[in-house]
Amino acid sequence: MASTFGTLLRISTWGESHGGGVGVVIDGCPPRLPLSEADIQPDLDRRRPGQSDIVTPRKEEDTCTILSGVFRGVTLGTPISIMVRNADARPEAYREMETHFRPSHADYTYQAKYGVRNWEGGGRSSARETIGRVAAGAVAKKILRALYPEIEILAWVSTVHDIGSSVDAAVVTARDIEANAVRCPDPAAATLMIERIKQVRGEGDSVGGVIEAVVRGCPAGLGEPVFDRLEADLAKAMLSLPATKGFEIGSGFGGTRLRGSEHNDPYQMEDGKVRTTSNRSGGVQGGISNGEHVTFRIAFKPTATIAKNQDTVTVEGNVSTLAARGRHDPCVVPRAVPIVEAMTALVLCDHALRQRALDVLPR
Amino acid sequence: MASTFGTLLRISTWGESHGGGVGVVIDGCPPRLPLSEADIQPDLDRRRPGQSDIVTPRKEEDTCTILSGVFRGVTLGTPISIMVRNADARPEAYREMETHFRPSHADYTYQAKYGVRNWEGGGRSSARETIGRVAAGAVAKKILRALYPEIEILAWVSTVHDIGSSVDAAVVTARDIEANAVRCPDPAAATLMIERIKQVRGEGDSVGGVIEAVVRGCPAGLGEPVFDRLEADLAKAMLSLPATKGFEIGSGFGGTRLRGSEHNDPYQMEDGKVRTTSNRSGGVQGGISNGEHVTFRIAFKPTATIAKNQDTVTVEGNVSTLAARGRHDPCVVPRAVPIVEAMTALVLCDHALRQRALDVLPR
Amino acid sequence: MASTFGTLLRISTWGESHGGGVGVVIDGCPPRLPLSEADIQPDLDRRRPGQSDIVTPRKEEDTCTILSGVFRGVTLGTPISIMVRNADARPEAYREMETHFRPSHADYTYQAKYGVRNWEGGGRSSARETIGRVAAGAVAKKILRALYPEIEILAWVSTVHDIGSSVDAAVVTARDIEANAVRCPDPAAATLMIERIKQVRGEGDSVGGVIEAVVRGCPAGLGEPVFDRLEADLAKAMLSLPATKGFEIGSGFGGTRLRGSEHNDPYQMEDGKVRTTSNRSGGVQGGISNGEHVTFRIAFKPTATIAKNQDTVTVEGNVSTLAARGRHDPCVVPRAVPIVEAMTALVLCDHALRQRALDVLPR
Amino acid sequence: MASTFGTLLRISTWGESHGGGVGVVIDGCPPRLPLSEADIQPDLDRRRPGQSDIVTPRKEEDTCTILSGVFRGVTLGTPISIMVRNADARPEAYREMETHFRPSHADYTYQAKYGVRNWEGGGRSSARETIGRVAAGAVAKKILRALYPEIEILAWVSTVHDIGSSVDAAVVTARDIEANAVRCPDPAAATLMIERIKQVRGEGDSVGGVIEAVVRGCPAGLGEPVFDRLEADLAKAMLSLPATKGFEIGSGFGGTRLRGSEHNDPYQMEDGKVRTTSNRSGGVQGGISNGEHVTFRIAFKPTATIAKNQDTVTVEGNVSTLAARGRHDPCVVPRAVPIVEAMTALVLCDHALRQRALDVLPR
Repeated sequence: MASTFGTLLRISTWGESHGGGVGVVIDGCPPRLPLSEADIQPDLDRRRPGQSDIVTPRKEEDTCTILSGVFRGVTLGTPISIMVRNADARPEAYREMETHFRPSHADYTYQAKYGVRNWEGGGRSSARETIGRVAAGAVAKKILRALYPEIEILAWVSTVHDIGSSVDAAVVTARDIEANAVRCPDPAAATLMIERIKQVRGEGDSVGGVIEAVVRGCPAGLGEPVFDRLEADLAKAMLSLPATKGFEIGSGFGGTRLRGSEHNDPYQMEDGKVRTTSNRSGGVQGGISNGEHVTFRIAFKPTATIAKNQDTVTVEGNVSTLAARGRHDPCVVPRAVPIVEAMTALVLCDHALRQRALDVLPR
Repeated sequence: MASTFGTLLRISTWGESHGGGVGVVIDGCPPRLPLSEADIQPDLDRRRPGQSDIVTPRKEEDTCTILSGVFRGVTLGTPISIMVRNADARPEAYREMETHFRPSHADYTYQAKYGVRNWEGGGRSSARETIGRVAAGAVAKKILRALYPEIEILAWVSTVHDIGSSVDAAVVTARDIEANAVRCPDPAAATLMIERIKQVRGEGDSVGGVIEAVVRGCPAGLGEPVFDRLEADLAKAMLSLPATKGFEIGSGFGGTRLRGSEHNDPYQMEDGKVRTTSNRSGGVQGGISNGEHVTFRIAFKPTATIAKNQDTVTVEGNVSTLAARGRHDPCVVPRAVPIVEAMTALVLCDHALRQRALDVLPR
Repeated sequence: MASTFGTLLRISTWGESHGGGVGVVIDGCPPRLPLSEADIQPDLDRRRPGQSDIVTPRKEEDTCTILSGVFRGVTLGTPISIMVRNADARPEAYREMETHFRPSHADYTYQAKYGVRNWEGGGRSSARETIGRVAAGAVAKKILRALYPEIEILAWVSTVHDIGSSVDAAVVTARDIEANAVRCPDPAAATLMIERIKQVRGEGDSVGGVIEAVVRGCPAGLGEPVFDRLEADLAKAMLSLPATKGFEIGSGFGGTRLRGSEHNDPYQMEDGKVRTTSNRSGGVQGGISNGEHVTFRIAFKPTATIAKNQDTVTVEGNVSTLAARGRHDPCVVPRAVPIVEAMTALVLCDHALRQRALDVLPR
Repeated sequence: MASTFGTLLRISTWGESHGGGVGVVIDGCPPRLPLSEADIQPDLDRRRPGQSDIVTPRKEEDTCTILSGVFRGVTLGTPISIMVRNADARPEAYREMETHFRPSHADYTYQAKYGVRNWEGGGRSSARETIGRVAAGAVAKKILRALYPEIEILAWVSTVHDIGSSVDAAVVTARDIEANAVRCPDPAAATLMIERIKQVRGEGDSVGGVIEAVVRGCPAGLGEPVFDRLEADLAKAMLSLPATKGFEIGSGFGGTRLRGSEHNDPYQMEDGKVRTTSNRSGGVQGGISNGEHVTFRIAFKPTATIAKNQDTVTVEGNVSTLAARGRHDPCVVPRAVPIVEAMTALVLCDHALRQRALDVLPR
């Protein structure tokens, strides 16, 4: 059940990097939502390998098929099964991984946990698993827009290695983000980032980065204390992604250095609504959205699989070295952007439905 | 169901700051575990108000009673209900909160979500809710020690405001941590921290801080990809705590600035075991523990409730100001230390039981 | 987690027959519902021992206390903790059960499963556990009435031993049911049943019976195929009660002897609504309520604990005999009536909230 | 989430009768289990249409493909996705169902609940949905046999219409059951049943029946009071199947007519084990298996879709009549036998894993 996520909108992903394919079953999608593959494919295209010269060259069209749950263009309220076939599998490129554990990859821990693993392409620990999340996220986005026409979920690359950027979460657009291969809406920074990624790839190395996200038009009242606080579920969603090492919402770690009088967001009235004049809370207070922009950041470590020679051990317990082959992203953040958006949409949609189920008596 | 946490070891907390009391029901505790209130009370004592001169002066003994699930000193395998009565309730001190929303507190969002709230002492959003977590965490610690006698879970205050500290996660002891009121095992830093907390309290203000935690002796193989990765469940657990704004594991946000060749933890053999020579992974790779120390940090914002005058609005939507009364911690991190330990124990214990259920066929 | 029931309205019961008490935590109750102990006590009074001369003489007032989740007379949307203290515990009356397994009771299976058990009064397997269910059921009834003012949930004793009755589910009233100690609304049958129960009790024996239930005013559309079909969740709810051996809905086992042309319920229009002219479906088709009366029956075996001498074995594995002491119902069905109603209300309320969460897009 | 079943071994089925196909994702299967399509296909073949002259003539090979979770012949511990394509879809045969509600079928209730439905072949309410259950059940059987080599799960047709049979649950074999098309191991009764089914089919009508099941070699200790009692989960599993109206375990409804002294199963010692000399409990006491044969029966109503003319209404609310075309089983029980076995295996396997997770401390 470790591959199931969500309470009311519940997804179950399946699939290994090399095998019959990857997919997702979405349970709990409201009926009567117009839906077709055309709603899903664009986000898959943003995630797929081979889309630019700074990502893995693995050739996958990642064309999705909806196998159930949709009839004559609308959802039935029954499970939606979506599948993508694996095409460009090259198990031979991973043969070393059968015997050698890649440092800081999941090879060893999968072996330790399961006593068996699919070493071809990383198996289940491959980022291909996220295809199901992105497909489901596209459905979640459609549900959210049907419920809250104003809602917008955007993520972008905020830093790569030590290269920062300057982006205003209040106004950034999808077009800005998609304007370059690294998905950083600060064009000057993007140029440097792309350069850096190419450089480290040339050196057989990799780099990390930070993705920032915003939800604009999020209604107040989403999030379910005490355990399913909105930021708790967002944190879980993000830390469930490969290569993530950190999450912060609003002021984050930086906010720990402030006093309460500096950190608190004063309330005011605006057009008859309770609003805050600052947003160090990141749109969430007491675990519940307050109607302001929800803003958060996720840390992605440098890709573990690198071509440089590294000390490691073999499955048999012998000391050895490994210079990995296979096709890998030198930096995961550009392709992780749609994945972060997808997980955000899944969390918000689930909480939107939960609030619908809770808020049933007259106010 | 938002007050339920865990898959196999499942806790349900209940209770408001002012009301009949607070408590927890623990479902799924293995039978035949020796257990009494004496196993639980020490952690509650570390959490309770009034324990030192840098925390809230609310007078609560927080004496717990086990109401079910234990018979003649051992657990029955049935739900364990644990309860603590509220003693020193002073609803009159919170009367302003009936009408005024405290900036950056949960007052407004609870009102927006539920259309009603218990404004006395913060109601359900009060840190008193964490009593149930700490009690359940003490039980989880006992289960873990029964399964893995070597396991140790320790948390401590790493920073307060801008005051850092120097602590070695590999050797720090519970005695070091409990040696001072702020629970920072670096004595020089602790002195400065205590001073700072007293100072801001004197000014009617508050400060934030960071808690660091380590799990030593954690076996390899805990954590359930893809969604219930160990770091994902830890992140959720921590971000479900009041006043948290961030979580990072291992290298965290700092690790994003490294190259793969700098970040990867090389493998070696040690006493016939696969070990790493560094631990930037923080003990988790691919969502599964690798047998190294699990290390992570949590950001706590400054306490929202301060005595300084702040701009806010009333329930009726009028602009107003508020200088909060009531009894509050000027800095939450000293008392949050046992809470972080408790949530860590709950996550690990749940995953330990899940691994027991999965790993049933011969290797 | 085996003591948790429900998806959106989720209850966790706790407590043993002899111990600190019994109770329930209700998570997911909608906020703003008027609620006090006075809403709950009447159903507890219908369940409690000592209420008549055909039930166990154990003296328990079963007075409930709401410990959380309610503020100034309305629910907060936070967990509602309800507790009843055990008063008339007499562990000495059960001392034989420490060493002897009662035939067809839970003594042996609890020992086999848990390796330990609270033998005082049956511990967790005692019907006292159902106090939490009845308390939660009273809350569920209030929620249901707030959502569907016309809804009525009624259960009654349909047979005792070989004594049947004649009751019209379409018109029977709570007053009819409560008119006699056995809760059979057919007065002539009730007299015979009461006589029979007294007779077998006099002989140190026990008898079984059948409870029938109806939900009138149930809206069409409740129930969630494929696994959480309404009849599936009702069946689980009922078979989770002590002493139950069977469940049937609508035509039940008798319906297997009909042809489709005899069994099918023809549709007609009535006041602009789709209605059926017969109700062999028992108000459920394809797992979903159809707007007709939901009708079902539950089989309760004779009470296992009897005063007659029986062959059994001891904990040490020695052949022995046992004539049980302790206080027990000679027939469980009269007191099981409010428990069946409570479980019915919990299932329906949960499904009502689930339908609210699913049916969110315009029709 | 209504299409998800199980706690630790969790299955999610998907698919409509007419559409891309049907399938299941199995999450929580222990790693290192030898598994291939050859383990699954035999049970699918027992379930598939067209297998004999007393079932629906729809032509489906129902050939399954394992898409994930298996590597080099063994399970990985990751989700196992299994798929079957729909081949012989004939939507035109169901065109009347677009406008007419079949009496006692799911047509109307699906429309009422979801506001939309796939009327082709019954959509999600079609028995084709059970393909996923049967596939998953085959996996569950393999896991169970790996854990308890002695375990046997058998179901058979006990009655058809008013034709009973005589079968000894203690000794009946799979070969006996599969010896005839109706799957009744009493050959004389089987002949009559087959005749009756052909007769009613000839008349455009249908009949119901009862399936009986036994689990032999079930260890003591499975089942989780209070809500997840073994019989409760079996009842839910069975009532979640299309066309079911009742469930009874052990003595069932008949047992309500006995006295406790007649009903109780006395204990004795046999080869050092606690055994009962009778089995009116049906192998379960207090919600937990006691090591005896687990025996239960399920009532299946006559197939709702019949060729005879019936009164009904249209989607627009007009009174009309309907004589259904399409291909349907005149009696569902022969093909339901492997489905009942599958659901039984899923329930037992889930409880076996749950007991593994609970029983972790030394006895």
